[in-house]
Amino acid sequence: MKAEIIAVGTELLLGQIANTNAQFISEKIAELGIGMYYHTTVGDNHERLRSVVELALNRSDLIIFSGGLGPTKDDLTKETVGQVLGKPLVEDREAMERILDYFKQRSKPMTENNRKQALVIEGSSILPNDHGMAPGMAIPYQGKHIIMLPGPPSELYPMFTTYAVPYLLSILNEKQIVHSKVLRFFGIGESALEETLMDLIDNQINPTIAPLAKEGEVTIRLTARSASQDEAEKLIAEVEREIESRVGRYIYGYNDESLVSVLVDQLKESGKTAAFAESITGGLISHMVTAIPGSSQVLKGSIICYTNEVKQSQLGVPDDILSSFGAVSAQSAGLMAEQVRVRLNSDFGVSITGEAGPNPSENKPVGLVYIGINDGSHTHVEEIRLSGRRSGIQLRAAKYAIFMLLERIKKGGF
Amino acid sequence: MKAEIIAVGTELLLGQIANTNAQFISEKIAELGIGMYYHTTVGDNHERLRSVVELALNRSDLIIFSGGLGPTKDDLTKETVGQVLGKPLVEDREAMERILDYFKQRSKPMTENNRKQALVIEGSSILPNDHGMAPGMAIPYQGKHIIMLPGPPSELYPMFTTYAVPYLLSILNEKQIVHSKVLRFFGIGESALEETLMDLIDNQINPTIAPLAKEGEVTIRLTARSASQDEAEKLIAEVEREIESRVGRYIYGYNDESLVSVLVDQLKESGKTAAFAESITGGLISHMVTAIPGSSQVLKGSIICYTNEVKQSQLGVPDDILSSFGAVSAQSAGLMAEQVRVRLNSDFGVSITGEAGPNPSENKPVGLVYIGINDGSHTHVEEIRLSGRRSGIQLRAAKYAIFMLLERIKKGGF
Repeated sequence: MKAEIIAVGTELLLGQIANTNAQFISEKIAELGIGMYYHTTVGDNHERLRSVVELALNRSDLIIFSGGLGPTKDDLTKETVGQVLGKPLVEDREAMERILDYFKQRSKPMTENNRKQALVIEGSSILPNDHGMAPGMAIPYQGKHIIMLPGPPSELYPMFTTYAVPYLLSILNEKQIVHSKVLRFFGIGESALEETLMDLIDNQINPTIAPLAKEGEVTIRLTARSASQDEAEKLIAEVEREIESRVGRYIYGYNDESLVSVLVDQLKESGKTAAFAESITGGLISHMVTAIPGSSQVLKGSIICYTNEVKQSQLGVPDDILSSFGAVSAQSAGLMAEQVRVRLNSDFGVSITGEAGPNPSENKPVGLVYIGINDGSHTHVEEIRLSGRRSGIQLRAAKYAIFMLLERIKKGGF
Repeated sequence: MKAEIIAVGTELLLGQIANTNAQFISEKIAELGIGMYYHTTVGDNHERLRSVVELALNRSDLIIFSGGLGPTKDDLTKETVGQVLGKPLVEDREAMERILDYFKQRSKPMTENNRKQALVIEGSSILPNDHGMAPGMAIPYQGKHIIMLPGPPSELYPMFTTYAVPYLLSILNEKQIVHSKVLRFFGIGESALEETLMDLIDNQINPTIAPLAKEGEVTIRLTARSASQDEAEKLIAEVEREIESRVGRYIYGYNDESLVSVLVDQLKESGKTAAFAESITGGLISHMVTAIPGSSQVLKGSIICYTNEVKQSQLGVPDDILSSFGAVSAQSAGLMAEQVRVRLNSDFGVSITGEAGPNPSENKPVGLVYIGINDGSHTHVEEIRLSGRRSGIQLRAAKYAIFMLLERIKKGGF
């Protein structure tokens, strides 16, 4: 089955927003084992949209539209696609009721143009919109399939997952389950990982093994096809065991987890708390942790010690340490970790100090970073060297610190 | 002139990355006053790429390619476009020298496939790649123009701005300058802004006025066309004065500035320093400030007081304030602002405390936020109420705090 996406919206052509809908849909389509061949973006223009729809019907079996289902004159997708297919628009009673309900609940009068949102192409299966008014549609047409989704990601994402995926599974000729699992790695580069797993990547067909590097991390997606979920999971488990036996120590999590979500979970599970002394990362680690709901259970707080003065006044790093070794040193990192743990009364103190650039200070090279962890009885400091731009150095340094604390928790010691 | 973008890369069709290049290019093309009609994404496949190129040559005057200029077998853009145009690939000496230099500087042997990167379509103007090896190209062809850019954004963005824009200006038939200026607003919503400026937005043709809302801020882009830069600037200045007279107090910056970059500049200019006591934003404000190079001149440090315990131990907020008014209160915010200023020895102390959700604590509603500023002689606290998700509340609260400090600096008092 050949798929393509048509995104409709002049705001995309003006560069006001990026087409993240296409990325989302493509990722899900790949998981279903369907081949995606084209993405097209076209503006709110009847003639050009029409020509794009005709082209797509000529070259693809599955066409997924996003955008243009709203109430305004600019919203042309339903009208244009209906015209090309030779099918009229009809009012969907359930959609109309949802729209009336929406206005009733908000005690607002419904304006007439909202009625347009309840119109659907005749013969469609409705994909309900649980987060907005315009319903989606799935339309079988001459052996092909057309899916129409609303533009706002907050409506499109859940509609696709909840209603479009089951429709797609039902039309996939093969009665196959497609099941994916993502393994998440830290501390190993993409090329080193690929080299170690080369024989598997080249020879494994079911599940397939797809590595991807992003923001200092690497993931491997295992995708299995099988007659049953059980069988697919078994196929994945076998290959996963083999990967684990080779590079298991770099796996920190699975699927939608992130380094920091795993850290918050692990701290919660072990009933421990942490505090951070951030210099080079300037609050990034604390921000990543506190972006997660419920993190107040495990994060006591942090000291952002961006200047030597604050390292002295708030963390008690002595003047002679700062002047003989510098703020970017194993000595300073060690003291910072110890002191932030003691002063904020937490189980773990984590410190991070380094040179983010663009210009080095203290005669230390840009990218040199020291990370310290104190657990109440020992202090462990690591020196790492990163390259790239300021924002990349800060992000990778933050992730490294989180990974080090995770390792310490897992091992129960250094 | 009708423009379209063709992005080449299977990783886009698999949803591994979003097509942010298309957004970037589209925004710049709109600024030049050129109409963008289509975006297409196609995989690393010769036949499909060929059909897409042929279609584009039929319907557009300017075709901008991104991706597929690299050294591997998958990189097909030059070869395919050259074939469609009936032009051979030739080695560009300067590009070859850059590639040889690159490997020499890193003392690495050059592998043979890298030679491919120096091949360009005969008759191209070279767009030098200052951040990578594959050069870009600009090719006039039967009254149309083709521009080819490398895929990595770190190479594409600067190449487009530095080399493609001047090329495009040179071919724009009308000898017109297109000049844009962006006004940045905070503290006023998009619809309120539009309403206040409705008559201007509807009637102004040169410059045009385009509002856009994003992440709690609103921008207005003024775009003028004229025979000279001077004249264009004069046209913009006139309308800008009118806008300023109506909503000037919400303008915090221009063009590529951000709230936080303006804050860092203003602090530097006035020789002042700041320190933050962050509860609800958990380090986000400090992270935003320290993302800017040179911020160590103006940020002393911060206390991330995520728990009441840390508000007491590190900021001296008394137990009876926390128990009678709560951590989310004007009283706590005021004390936090004062104490962080004193303890971190800075000119301004800024505090922020509130409920980010998803679940309220202390019987305070989600979205309730208190922001305090202490300048050494006075403390000023504001209460704001935000709605939405946790991450949105944290971001808008952080921006509000930055805006309040900016206002204080501008006014010289509360």
